[in-house]
Amino acid sequence: MTAYLDKIQTPEDLRKLSLEELPELCQELRRFIIEQTAEHPGHLGSSLGVVELTVALHYVFDTPNDKLVWDVGHQAYCHKILTGRKDQFHTNRCYGGISGFPRREESEYDAFGTGHSSTSISAVLGMAMASKLKGDKNRNHIAVIGDGAIGGGMAFEAMNQAAYRDVNMLVILNDNKISIDQSTGAMSKYLLTLTASPAYNRFKNRIWNLFTFKSKSSNAITRFFSKLGNGIKGYLLGGSNWFQSLGYRYFGPADGHDVIYLVKTLQSLKRLPGLQLLHVITVKGKGLDAAEHNQTTYHAPGKFDPDTGEIIKPEIGVQPPKYQDVFGHTLLEIARKDDKVVGITPAMATGCSMTIMDAEFPERVFDVGIAEQHAVTFAAGMVTDGFTVFCNIYSSFLQRGYDQVIHDVALQKLPVIFCIDRAGLVGEDGATHQGVFDLAFLRSVPDLIISSPRNEHELRNLMITAYSNAKANGLPFVIRYPRGRGQLCDWHNEPRQIAIGKSEMLREGKDLLVLSLGPLAAQVSKAFQQLESDGITPAHLDVRFLKPLDEAILLELAERFPVWMTVEDGTEKGGLFSAIAEFLEDNGLHQIRLLHAAIPDRFISHGDIPSLYKEVGFDVDSLAEKMREALQ
Amino acid sequence: MTAYLDKIQTPEDLRKLSLEELPELCQELRRFIIEQTAEHPGHLGSSLGVVELTVALHYVFDTPNDKLVWDVGHQAYCHKILTGRKDQFHTNRCYGGISGFPRREESEYDAFGTGHSSTSISAVLGMAMASKLKGDKNRNHIAVIGDGAIGGGMAFEAMNQAAYRDVNMLVILNDNKISIDQSTGAMSKYLLTLTASPAYNRFKNRIWNLFTFKSKSSNAITRFFSKLGNGIKGYLLGGSNWFQSLGYRYFGPADGHDVIYLVKTLQSLKRLPGLQLLHVITVKGKGLDAAEHNQTTYHAPGKFDPDTGEIIKPEIGVQPPKYQDVFGHTLLEIARKDDKVVGITPAMATGCSMTIMDAEFPERVFDVGIAEQHAVTFAAGMVTDGFTVFCNIYSSFLQRGYDQVIHDVALQKLPVIFCIDRAGLVGEDGATHQGVFDLAFLRSVPDLIISSPRNEHELRNLMITAYSNAKANGLPFVIRYPRGRGQLCDWHNEPRQIAIGKSEMLREGKDLLVLSLGPLAAQVSKAFQQLESDGITPAHLDVRFLKPLDEAILLELAERFPVWMTVEDGTEKGGLFSAIAEFLEDNGLHQIRLLHAAIPDRFISHGDIPSLYKEVGFDVDSLAEKMREALQ
Repeated sequence: MTAYLDKIQTPEDLRKLSLEELPELCQELRRFIIEQTAEHPGHLGSSLGVVELTVALHYVFDTPNDKLVWDVGHQAYCHKILTGRKDQFHTNRCYGGISGFPRREESEYDAFGTGHSSTSISAVLGMAMASKLKGDKNRNHIAVIGDGAIGGGMAFEAMNQAAYRDVNMLVILNDNKISIDQSTGAMSKYLLTLTASPAYNRFKNRIWNLFTFKSKSSNAITRFFSKLGNGIKGYLLGGSNWFQSLGYRYFGPADGHDVIYLVKTLQSLKRLPGLQLLHVITVKGKGLDAAEHNQTTYHAPGKFDPDTGEIIKPEIGVQPPKYQDVFGHTLLEIARKDDKVVGITPAMATGCSMTIMDAEFPERVFDVGIAEQHAVTFAAGMVTDGFTVFCNIYSSFLQRGYDQVIHDVALQKLPVIFCIDRAGLVGEDGATHQGVFDLAFLRSVPDLIISSPRNEHELRNLMITAYSNAKANGLPFVIRYPRGRGQLCDWHNEPRQIAIGKSEMLREGKDLLVLSLGPLAAQVSKAFQQLESDGITPAHLDVRFLKPLDEAILLELAERFPVWMTVEDGTEKGGLFSAIAEFLEDNGLHQIRLLHAAIPDRFISHGDIPSLYKEVGFDVDSLAEKMREALQ
Repeated sequence: MTAYLDKIQTPEDLRKLSLEELPELCQELRRFIIEQTAEHPGHLGSSLGVVELTVALHYVFDTPNDKLVWDVGHQAYCHKILTGRKDQFHTNRCYGGISGFPRREESEYDAFGTGHSSTSISAVLGMAMASKLKGDKNRNHIAVIGDGAIGGGMAFEAMNQAAYRDVNMLVILNDNKISIDQSTGAMSKYLLTLTASPAYNRFKNRIWNLFTFKSKSSNAITRFFSKLGNGIKGYLLGGSNWFQSLGYRYFGPADGHDVIYLVKTLQSLKRLPGLQLLHVITVKGKGLDAAEHNQTTYHAPGKFDPDTGEIIKPEIGVQPPKYQDVFGHTLLEIARKDDKVVGITPAMATGCSMTIMDAEFPERVFDVGIAEQHAVTFAAGMVTDGFTVFCNIYSSFLQRGYDQVIHDVALQKLPVIFCIDRAGLVGEDGATHQGVFDLAFLRSVPDLIISSPRNEHELRNLMITAYSNAKANGLPFVIRYPRGRGQLCDWHNEPRQIAIGKSEMLREGKDLLVLSLGPLAAQVSKAFQQLESDGITPAHLDVRFLKPLDEAILLELAERFPVWMTVEDGTEKGGLFSAIAEFLEDNGLHQIRLLHAAIPDRFISHGDIPSLYKEVGFDVDSLAEKMREALQ
């Protein structure tokens, strides 16, 4: 079943195969990815879509000498399997195993680490420029970027810049949004054949337009693009002029699942110097029916049956909801009562469950695509006109909109409501996606309210509070909460407003005061249970607002508790620990000893949350142990 | 001389003038701006370039009901003068006076505050979307954006998004880079006239190309664009397809100095619904010969003779150099010795003096345009290939590249050297440009070395140190330094390496230890002189590295000094003060009292540095007073 695959440890082995053997290898690879991912969950759909492209790239180009960078990188499973990591692939995304994204430290074939979107062209341009300065005209530099990622501003900056640099660079646009039927596949091949012809450029647009708008699928395509609300689709459909106007030699569209054709095409392009763009059409989830037909679900489906694709739900009782769903339902409740409420998110509508509001009020939900910078300022613009905007961005992606939070929102005191999902440790996605810096980088911004709910009820309370604050033209309001499930099956409380900046005493106690921010409060409570047998009964304050701090309460507590300990799911440099340390210094409270549990000052790799919690000391045992130490 | 201008307090007064009176008003306005700016320095060139455009916009549109946003905003002087701020205009950029940029709190005509580039389309799209949701089809929404700013990734994200939103929005591309001679002006008018014709779209490109490449200036234009190294110029020259492919109705190019023509054009566009782009050609510095011919110098020339344009140099002796020039010369020295050294900057080559290296090694200097995100990752890409990259970005603009610093540089431990100019308070440019967050937002990033020189010698030492560290494949290295002049006329020392993380004791003393970071060390020294008469002799440690902290020395000093005071030109939330507070807590050093002088947790407005220093307590008197208090 894996006769060809068994022979391949590195791309050098791959290059020993004949061209005719490649389709069979692709089938083996695809089966391997499906079987592995069925058992060890990961990003399935995008990796299945680029099996042929990956094989063709490593077959044609001299990797790792030639430089190949996968944008975002979650589609790089096939790349990993072909570059020496087949035998470790079952450890994909596991604690201590290989990463779900390319990483330079993992392999010399991973020319640049990725994870966030739209970085590949910048990085590859850097490498191409290095070759140029070194006088190396032979080395090839390839960026593979999806049709979503190429709409990110950063990718545009890089494409714009590359156009005037006379470098040897190939950008492969992996376009997996256009569902291509049988006749289309033939047509796109025909178009690609034409690229060799000097007459091609003159006729391509006409043919492509003719084809696109006359084919059976045209209505579905048009509807799809309208819904997507993303201009980039427009110029893809409208032909290749857009890339050509930027100075790129445009080739395609090519059928991304015909490996022999891809090899021949890449061999031709390899001989051409300069700046090229190859437009490849692929199908997300290719080869697994269920995945092809439900691309969003099978983006990262969890465990499933490798033959039928059926998703295996863990057998458990009623579970608490995901935080994202509590956000989604609560947003809908608020939106139902006030037609001035809108939602904005940069390409995370499903991930943050803004789809729940979208289903009922599509005209008030704006998925702006991979465009974090724009999302923030677009939100600010709507707020100037009296709208109440819930802007949902994952913590690690908000790093992309930091300047806009400072310059367009906070400086103008515009009450945008930022709901920061995936805050804290996210687990298997690893270092690029851990949301551990937001508390620190937001706290330094004046005029922001920064909060984190300890559970689902509090999330709802904070959302209502932020809503009222915005209606009263208050300050911008941040609510950060984690990936995954909460703790309360009866999550649907009647939300109530919280006084801004007000903490909550969860448990009275003595000797030690634990100050927690966010859902780690539950870990703290469990640690308390351990301590009871030792006769230790610390007090527990849910800080709730990192900014403004509840200084009045803190001053009172300073008189009663000689030892404090902060607990936060964020870096130890600049977040809650720092805020409390500053507070103690500013108030001359030298008698207090302050300890902290926080993310240490290093990048935290991927793995399951329990393992990561143990690593950073958030597990119940470690927290309890630290509390014991605090009292020694 | 200002007969028309005298009559105008608001745009309503402007609209009472006849069309024929507008050219005379424009002359008065231009003269007013020249005379005011000659005496009270500001951004001259760009404001002179948009006099006619500003008059036409307020004449045609119903501001402030219609929404008008100026991208970057330094070109908005004429706008300010026409919207009620003529009489305060002499306070422009002064402490307590009006801002050099639009600010919502200053006028209802300032629909959105600006300062950083490329934000206007996002903000205006938000307003246009608000109108759409409210069912208001009459309100107009206008963004005026320059040809540099439209190349920023954020602007692209917004344009991309707007194309599918069916909104009423006019983007005015203020193109002031193309020097248009007499015949061109006539031709562009002709083209504009044609826009009314249905045949126009078919023929425009042909005519425009014909004209552009056959006119006398074509060689100069082509050379200019090659040198600029910016692809966006390519599509401007290549015709309007680029905008049209994005879904914009493209009009232009129009002569931006023919106010009557502009009024008529805008009146036509006002009647058209939907998404439009008007391409206006203007001359930076228009109306002042010297400014037209030396656009970079007259971007913000300081004081000058309003008649001749001659720049008035203050009569003083030999001055210490600007930090930026010390950077520029030192970079050149390093680049001369190592051809693997390159410089990258996003549109700040002149401002950071990378032009000094560019003059000798143009092939190794990359001004990537307004593209901070790309600049950082492009630098990372080159570093993977063995190049040593000095990446120079102003502090407040690095906020745009924050994610890239984390995700593409620090996470991969790539030793990019970030030279952060304009760090700390920058003065007259005000809140949008104060570089006060960098210490905080960078400190939370693992694996960064963060330093700040106290003077020019130290800047050179740190640059050499960073260079050696990069050659040895060390960690990424940040050097942050302020706008303006240093302190040493004999700045040109023989640079020497500094041990990374090593602080320097500048003065021994007793009782109080002052820990400063960066050039505020000089203020501290002056404060010490005041204190001598009181018999107070504090010690002074130049921390030099915010990260890693010199913990060994700090532990020693903790035994000798019961009172510490940090001094830093950055926010008090998350920088040096926080780092020392954390250090004291982590080491159980409760006996020490810690005070701080830092930027308070609010946005600091514009003004001269001495006034701002007094406001935040960096003046010598305040520092001395705080030291006295510390010892009480």
